[in-house]
Amino acid sequence: MIIALDAMGGDNAPEAVVQGAIQALSESPSDLSIVLLGDENTIDTVLDGFISPRLSIIHTTQIVGMHDRASKALKTKPDSSLVRGIQMVTNKEANAFVSAGNTGAVMTTSLLSYGRIKHVKRPTLGVYIPTLHGGKILCDVGANPDAKPYHILQSAIMASHYFDHVENHKNPKVGLINIGAEPNKGSELYQETYQLLKKELPNFIGNIEGRHIMDCEADVLVCDGFVGNILLKFAEGWVNVFSNEIKARISDKFSYKIGALLLKPVFKGFAKKFDYEEHGGTPLLGVNGVSIITHGSAGPKAVCNSVLLAKKCIDENLIEDIRISLEEHLGASA
Amino acid sequence: MIIALDAMGGDNAPEAVVQGAIQALSESPSDLSIVLLGDENTIDTVLDGFISPRLSIIHTTQIVGMHDRASKALKTKPDSSLVRGIQMVTNKEANAFVSAGNTGAVMTTSLLSYGRIKHVKRPTLGVYIPTLHGGKILCDVGANPDAKPYHILQSAIMASHYFDHVENHKNPKVGLINIGAEPNKGSELYQETYQLLKKELPNFIGNIEGRHIMDCEADVLVCDGFVGNILLKFAEGWVNVFSNEIKARISDKFSYKIGALLLKPVFKGFAKKFDYEEHGGTPLLGVNGVSIITHGSAGPKAVCNSVLLAKKCIDENLIEDIRISLEEHLGASA
Repeated sequence: MIIALDAMGGDNAPEAVVQGAIQALSESPSDLSIVLLGDENTIDTVLDGFISPRLSIIHTTQIVGMHDRASKALKTKPDSSLVRGIQMVTNKEANAFVSAGNTGAVMTTSLLSYGRIKHVKRPTLGVYIPTLHGGKILCDVGANPDAKPYHILQSAIMASHYFDHVENHKNPKVGLINIGAEPNKGSELYQETYQLLKKELPNFIGNIEGRHIMDCEADVLVCDGFVGNILLKFAEGWVNVFSNEIKARISDKFSYKIGALLLKPVFKGFAKKFDYEEHGGTPLLGVNGVSIITHGSAGPKAVCNSVLLAKKCIDENLIEDIRISLEEHLGASA
Repeated sequence: MIIALDAMGGDNAPEAVVQGAIQALSESPSDLSIVLLGDENTIDTVLDGFISPRLSIIHTTQIVGMHDRASKALKTKPDSSLVRGIQMVTNKEANAFVSAGNTGAVMTTSLLSYGRIKHVKRPTLGVYIPTLHGGKILCDVGANPDAKPYHILQSAIMASHYFDHVENHKNPKVGLINIGAEPNKGSELYQETYQLLKKELPNFIGNIEGRHIMDCEADVLVCDGFVGNILLKFAEGWVNVFSNEIKARISDKFSYKIGALLLKPVFKGFAKKFDYEEHGGTPLLGVNGVSIITHGSAGPKAVCNSVLLAKKCIDENLIEDIRISLEEHLGASA
């Protein structure tokens, strides 16, 4: 199996990507090979003499930046690590693609190159959110900000497959994010979606209010891409604001520093639970190929885990299973 | 000035409400009188002999519970403290109403009883969110989950008046919550709203992404009531999950307890910044009368501050100013 890896994508590229690739090779069986796409000289410098028959480089001359327009990447940056990597999958020169680069560009280029899985109306992006008692998938977090009820149903089905196969969690429970627990709560979109999910999904457990996102019973939380994106980014921003403020206050006084030292294991254990590096990435669901999107600030561990996740998506036939499952709910689209 | 106070509303009623009323009387000038609505015997017990010429009781026999349907309160609970209090304002027997009870019921009953301010399409609910560097208004947090661009414009105008008058902050900056900074980001609703706000509001500073909600320059953050409600409740839930988990871990070991003791001032200072009791409540904006909605778990301080806020809304002519301001933007509704 060959994984194409965008060596130039992400805040910590290429160092974190190259180190993550080396780590993935050492952790996975011999049937895994990695192709690093990016500037050959830069990658060689980071490799610092490391060689492996399972690791190769494809030289590319362009980079898709975080501010490049997602929809233009395919046309304007044809020799970028991002576009070339995705085209390797399209041309069956690689089995899957992994990138910590411009999320929108990975989504759009994957969609334009792979096309959609049969029956999929809109691709969707789920993220694994670690909580105190196991993790959940929040989906969609931005692929489709103007969702219809049927799109959210498909998100629920695709994210459930992801959770089932990749996280080894059978029959995940599905919850609909909403502003109240009762079926008649929320906007028209959410009232209609509630009825559709209830009719189509035996594992649907109902509406989940904002306050219960972190401690509800649902394994898969669905919403439209606008709400999901705002929630995800708000949570990230809030954690940053909080920890920066606490750190600044602790430096004010010697006794605070001692207190912080004593409490270090508590905070470390807590932070470990919420460490996205453990999960690394998430597949863009609904496209007819595997592209794993990794957090922009991914470190080597996140990159390594994203590569292993890509391998798992292929090994577990995620795409074919999604196709079969969506076929069972075709009637709901009417 | 007479404030009608729902003595039976909220998790800590009637104790917190009665204590809050006594506190408000002691903190405010002699032109403030309070009418407590609720079960006379229960209130008398809590008053425990306290009397004041500025405090009276109106006996009511029904209670609107947290699970009562908001839209039915007016019809099914006509002798509740909530409905009778709002009707006192309608009948000009009181200047304003304050409740920590069922938010939906206060909103619906106020709307049905007061009607809307002239030109208002939909009432809106803003909350004061304390941040590290001053506070902001997040609006709408649930009054109108199916908003149109013009509703969000009106929310921005009304919340700006609230911030200007009540928080004494002139010319607040308005931001639109969105999934990206560029004007073309977000759902159709948000793309259209961006253009409308840009055209109508000189203080509009653009889109604010989820990650910058807590540290952006905007004083007033607007969004539809669905997104705002989910955000608000998610933040509340997350803080609870976080603090409960940290507390549980600290109790594991003696050294952690010592560390926590040393760090207590840090956490206390931090918590004080985010203490909603300091602000207490928020007026339902757009209805033709003042109803202050206070957090369900409000303590005496929050109730007291809500009463003082009600007085300020009247003193500052918030309703009349909103009416005049909306008149200036009537062209935008076309």
